[in-house]
Amino acid sequence: MAGSAWGRYFRVMTFGESHGPALGAVIDGCPPGLSLDQALLQQDLDRRRPGQSGVTTPRSEPDRVEVLSGLFEGKTTGTPIAMVIYNQDADPAAYDHLREVFRPGHGDLAYFLKYGTRDHRGGGRASGRETAARVAAGAVARAFLAEHGVRVIAGTIQVGSVVARSRDWDEVERNVMRAPESEAAELMEALVNELKEEGDSAGGVIEVLARGVPAGLGEPVFGKLDADLAGALMSIGAVKGVEIGDGFETASRRGSENADPIFSDGEGKVRTRFNRAGGILAGISTGEDIIARIAVKPTSSIGLEQQTIDRQGRSAPLEIRGRHDPCLCPRIVPVAEAMVLIVLADHLLAQRAKTGIPGPAGSLPPPPLEK
Amino acid sequence: MAGSAWGRYFRVMTFGESHGPALGAVIDGCPPGLSLDQALLQQDLDRRRPGQSGVTTPRSEPDRVEVLSGLFEGKTTGTPIAMVIYNQDADPAAYDHLREVFRPGHGDLAYFLKYGTRDHRGGGRASGRETAARVAAGAVARAFLAEHGVRVIAGTIQVGSVVARSRDWDEVERNVMRAPESEAAELMEALVNELKEEGDSAGGVIEVLARGVPAGLGEPVFGKLDADLAGALMSIGAVKGVEIGDGFETASRRGSENADPIFSDGEGKVRTRFNRAGGILAGISTGEDIIARIAVKPTSSIGLEQQTIDRQGRSAPLEIRGRHDPCLCPRIVPVAEAMVLIVLADHLLAQRAKTGIPGPAGSLPPPPLEK
Amino acid sequence: MAGSAWGRYFRVMTFGESHGPALGAVIDGCPPGLSLDQALLQQDLDRRRPGQSGVTTPRSEPDRVEVLSGLFEGKTTGTPIAMVIYNQDADPAAYDHLREVFRPGHGDLAYFLKYGTRDHRGGGRASGRETAARVAAGAVARAFLAEHGVRVIAGTIQVGSVVARSRDWDEVERNVMRAPESEAAELMEALVNELKEEGDSAGGVIEVLARGVPAGLGEPVFGKLDADLAGALMSIGAVKGVEIGDGFETASRRGSENADPIFSDGEGKVRTRFNRAGGILAGISTGEDIIARIAVKPTSSIGLEQQTIDRQGRSAPLEIRGRHDPCLCPRIVPVAEAMVLIVLADHLLAQRAKTGIPGPAGSLPPPPLEK
Amino acid sequence: MAGSAWGRYFRVMTFGESHGPALGAVIDGCPPGLSLDQALLQQDLDRRRPGQSGVTTPRSEPDRVEVLSGLFEGKTTGTPIAMVIYNQDADPAAYDHLREVFRPGHGDLAYFLKYGTRDHRGGGRASGRETAARVAAGAVARAFLAEHGVRVIAGTIQVGSVVARSRDWDEVERNVMRAPESEAAELMEALVNELKEEGDSAGGVIEVLARGVPAGLGEPVFGKLDADLAGALMSIGAVKGVEIGDGFETASRRGSENADPIFSDGEGKVRTRFNRAGGILAGISTGEDIIARIAVKPTSSIGLEQQTIDRQGRSAPLEIRGRHDPCLCPRIVPVAEAMVLIVLADHLLAQRAKTGIPGPAGSLPPPPLEK
Repeated sequence: MAGSAWGRYFRVMTFGESHGPALGAVIDGCPPGLSLDQALLQQDLDRRRPGQSGVTTPRSEPDRVEVLSGLFEGKTTGTPIAMVIYNQDADPAAYDHLREVFRPGHGDLAYFLKYGTRDHRGGGRASGRETAARVAAGAVARAFLAEHGVRVIAGTIQVGSVVARSRDWDEVERNVMRAPESEAAELMEALVNELKEEGDSAGGVIEVLARGVPAGLGEPVFGKLDADLAGALMSIGAVKGVEIGDGFETASRRGSENADPIFSDGEGKVRTRFNRAGGILAGISTGEDIIARIAVKPTSSIGLEQQTIDRQGRSAPLEIRGRHDPCLCPRIVPVAEAMVLIVLADHLLAQRAKTGIPGPAGSLPPPPLEK
Repeated sequence: MAGSAWGRYFRVMTFGESHGPALGAVIDGCPPGLSLDQALLQQDLDRRRPGQSGVTTPRSEPDRVEVLSGLFEGKTTGTPIAMVIYNQDADPAAYDHLREVFRPGHGDLAYFLKYGTRDHRGGGRASGRETAARVAAGAVARAFLAEHGVRVIAGTIQVGSVVARSRDWDEVERNVMRAPESEAAELMEALVNELKEEGDSAGGVIEVLARGVPAGLGEPVFGKLDADLAGALMSIGAVKGVEIGDGFETASRRGSENADPIFSDGEGKVRTRFNRAGGILAGISTGEDIIARIAVKPTSSIGLEQQTIDRQGRSAPLEIRGRHDPCLCPRIVPVAEAMVLIVLADHLLAQRAKTGIPGPAGSLPPPPLEK
Repeated sequence: MAGSAWGRYFRVMTFGESHGPALGAVIDGCPPGLSLDQALLQQDLDRRRPGQSGVTTPRSEPDRVEVLSGLFEGKTTGTPIAMVIYNQDADPAAYDHLREVFRPGHGDLAYFLKYGTRDHRGGGRASGRETAARVAAGAVARAFLAEHGVRVIAGTIQVGSVVARSRDWDEVERNVMRAPESEAAELMEALVNELKEEGDSAGGVIEVLARGVPAGLGEPVFGKLDADLAGALMSIGAVKGVEIGDGFETASRRGSENADPIFSDGEGKVRTRFNRAGGILAGISTGEDIIARIAVKPTSSIGLEQQTIDRQGRSAPLEIRGRHDPCLCPRIVPVAEAMVLIVLADHLLAQRAKTGIPGPAGSLPPPPLEK
Repeated sequence: MAGSAWGRYFRVMTFGESHGPALGAVIDGCPPGLSLDQALLQQDLDRRRPGQSGVTTPRSEPDRVEVLSGLFEGKTTGTPIAMVIYNQDADPAAYDHLREVFRPGHGDLAYFLKYGTRDHRGGGRASGRETAARVAAGAVARAFLAEHGVRVIAGTIQVGSVVARSRDWDEVERNVMRAPESEAAELMEALVNELKEEGDSAGGVIEVLARGVPAGLGEPVFGKLDADLAGALMSIGAVKGVEIGDGFETASRRGSENADPIFSDGEGKVRTRFNRAGGILAGISTGEDIIARIAVKPTSSIGLEQQTIDRQGRSAPLEIRGRHDPCLCPRIVPVAEAMVLIVLADHLLAQRAKTGIPGPAGSLPPPPLEK
């Protein structure tokens, strides 16, 4: 309960620091009998891995995941699945110049104030490196959800002022920005490279899509599906905002503009015309696509000089050396997917606990034929 | 764990439906020895209460809160504080015309699919009425946090296209919109009344400010303070987006634009120049004002005709009668405060568990005098 | 998480003090669509109610339970079920002589030390009266489990030196001691009356039987079914020991004496010959009867003089007046049932979350016919 | 929440199977700044390690613990402490003869029914080997509690019919039985060797003592300190009963026999004359020694023939080969300590969260001098 675990039914606890021996995740509650292909786990980790392209940090980590428990003859046993990723290219010496100063925009100062102690080596637990453990856990959730027809994918839809105008989700893995539109991807990449050259960095927006989610997931009041998604996504470092469906746009609409008629598609499936709600009404999935967007701030580690203070409280100018991503979006994409996968797996089990069915307990007849 | 509880240390469980006998909250984990003035609890409930003004629903509920346990001679005992609010003006008959149809934009359909059963009377548990229980719990958290110098206040900063340009928090309780700017409040009210006249409704944005929060609250990774705030705020009905600090604006910034120098104020307090992060870095409070904003969609219950279906799957036009708020913002303001209060109380106890201190365990010397 | 809630899936939070306004329980996670007859709830409460016979306290409480939420047209909705029991015959004045002294064997001193404050009126939250809320929650669990063929019953099998030699569970409600043997019941009652006469009290042992529990309930390691049963039963006031199956007797056995052959009953059901394990192996139910026993200490409130101290630390002789049970067993019987019911409901949902089935996921073929 | 985690504040999640790659534990919530000597962790693990003497299994495991996170320059950082123990002498082939049969008294059958799948290699997660992870976590709790003056020690007080008559806790580590009396230890060892020779095994009783526990730990109702101790101790494999203080003996006492006067020791410390309650009243520690006892069944794996069935449901005689402890007590001693340590650490943090003090919030004056 102390902050490093997520989920009630599909429970994920992670551990590990950026420059310690290893990172990892333990999943308690994964159903038994699930086929788990370690190559598929690795595939997700490879997408988050540093050093993939010019727009990511050059730190070189194979991020090889080892499954230590919960798997027998290729299938989950129902007991905790522990996964560990040993750090290989940790370079704590590169952080020696940070031992005495606090980097602006980072957790350095907040962690020091919180704990009265400090692991200055690359952010310790606050480093983006902790997300490797999330991705490992998310990959297990992905395997579980795939069996129930659920697919989750994310993409970079904005970097700086460049905004993707369309969504071709198959495009995402074809460009280094992980944008769902090739043209926008090129402009984004050019912008990031330009900023990188200047010692600067770029923010952006990521959209996550969950397709095939059965209606009925989510709990009333505090355990709403969108509440859990918002918490899970906001828990990713550098994320400063979350919206579901039409999000902040709805604030300037009137009710009649935001209305979304319900209709039956003629085959017993109930639909909403515009899916303005992003697949969630009153905190419960409707069966429509779930859509969430997150705001990612520009990387705080920049080469340009910033003002800060040191541990004696003295002001200290700082130029951050070391290896950093000029734009975090491409690598946060798989992390955002992982968090959505974990949340959905958790809620699918919650619904199954309550009703025995991992989906809707109620159903509607198809509309009567009309003459 | 099934969705109606929030918090790990200051744990709040709520219950109750819009048209059932009563609503309530039980708080487990509130520290002993806290003076709890029932008049103060009532004051918060009165701010959320229906029927306060022309821009709120005319349903008339005194929302009288009774404390059933955990209080002895005016002080908390450390055992669960149960609070109950009996419904007085429930009018289930007013909902008879909704027994067979699903209101668009509401939880009607999602609840039916989830549970296979339906309480059609005013939304049941999905009704905004459940927030009375949140406000009661938040008022207890407010009393606790006041002892630690923490103050939380919220206000409506946007309705439709009307945006408040300044923040005068003392103004909030002086206008019916609960806006922190009197001029904007008037424009907002006019807009809401106009829409109400037309049988329509308005969305908006609420800003929440937490002042005096000690540095060091929040946990790494999943238990980040902003993650919990995002989840807690998104769990309020009609909220479709949450942002912290500069939120979505940071997405279009470059790193050097978003930089926020750290300095010492000369009295041992460490500050950031612009508080772009909204008081939270790496998920942990910095001691700066915590700032969150939420997008509130326009009320889905409108008098204008909408298309929907009934329980036989047949299409059915619908004009919603009954008593509804033409704009939800003024009444969500105290609910948003309540959620932030509950989250902060929870994290303050978490930090005290870990370190014995309800605030920072680390500190910095004041900067040396310079000549 | 602060001590007043039990269960992960079928989650029960209770509140209330002996001489405050009311007691109650909120259940979060009860499946929807369950028929809940309030008369059945009341029936369980009546069994725990004070004033039933000469061997119970004369305090007169109707213990009328009101359901405030989660029920619609006689069925559970899936949302929290809140139940409240108002105190009627609270007589705080009767405790005035205890305001300054700490009763030995009671929670008076421990509560004062823990919280630095004291509700002296009849034990406050530490009073046995809190168990009314447990029984209310247990009655809901009983209704749920009955749908799955599970039946839980308990009885007093020992009082002082009187030990029941046989188990006729239908006998339990026919005698005031709630013993499963009429002869023993008479001897127990005589003993209790004798001790009551002398201003003294009696301890005893209660056995709980759960029949029809499907195999497969319980989780490995910490979430073992017997671990949860032990915790749940030990949480009842006055209980000082818990054992499962043959319990402490196994300590003096050798392995071959404790062996329990597995066989197939010829109809596909796997059995163990002697059920020495009390229906639980490695923390998981086997399908055999679950059997637990608890040691109940003699009532600490006795009329005979005891030595204690007052709030000034001065020694103070004490004769406890007021209304007390000379033997707690008959009234703990329904409480023990309630705790076992709550634990089983929780584990049944846990198993359903994991596998979709509220029982065994594996099965064995019937043994092949032998010639 | 799926069974492999314990604790709310000092939260321990374990993973791993007997014959998988590794076992481990992750602790979330350990306070920062705690000095953690890995040699001390190893010392506890060495006490649980197999192959220590003639009365333990000959499986040879160094049980070398590696700390993967949460430690920096010898101190805890406040973030999760992950510890891993790689299996070295796993010999899955030795279990090939068990692939098709279910060992009586073991979890084989229950696990198969629960999950519909089976890891037959030495019990998988149900093996006693999982307790290595508990001991690692307990050692961290021990370091934390030592800073607060709390000491926990356990010993074997009964094996078969041999009962220790005295308690010399310094004696425990001087004999292979871990008994607190040297004479009894010799008799126990002789008995165990005799049974081992016959292919049989022995049960026993372990007593755990916690000294220096401050008054005020434990929560009302469900979170009682004794409830948590009972659950934690019963969660250890082979444990079939738990009692606190005078336990089952109190069942045959009358109230006046069980009375335990409260007095002030003249220096402000409140005491009870006989500590019949084992240091816990109404679920809350009193400051007296906490005393718990557990019943350990004889090892189910014996060389003598037992009757069972195979996966086709056919009856199958079985002689269990492989490496087993003829009496589990000596190796459960450190595990029982670990569980008590984890529970106490959890409650100490809980109390600190509530009151800011890891102990009593109330106090009594010393008694006035009497003339």
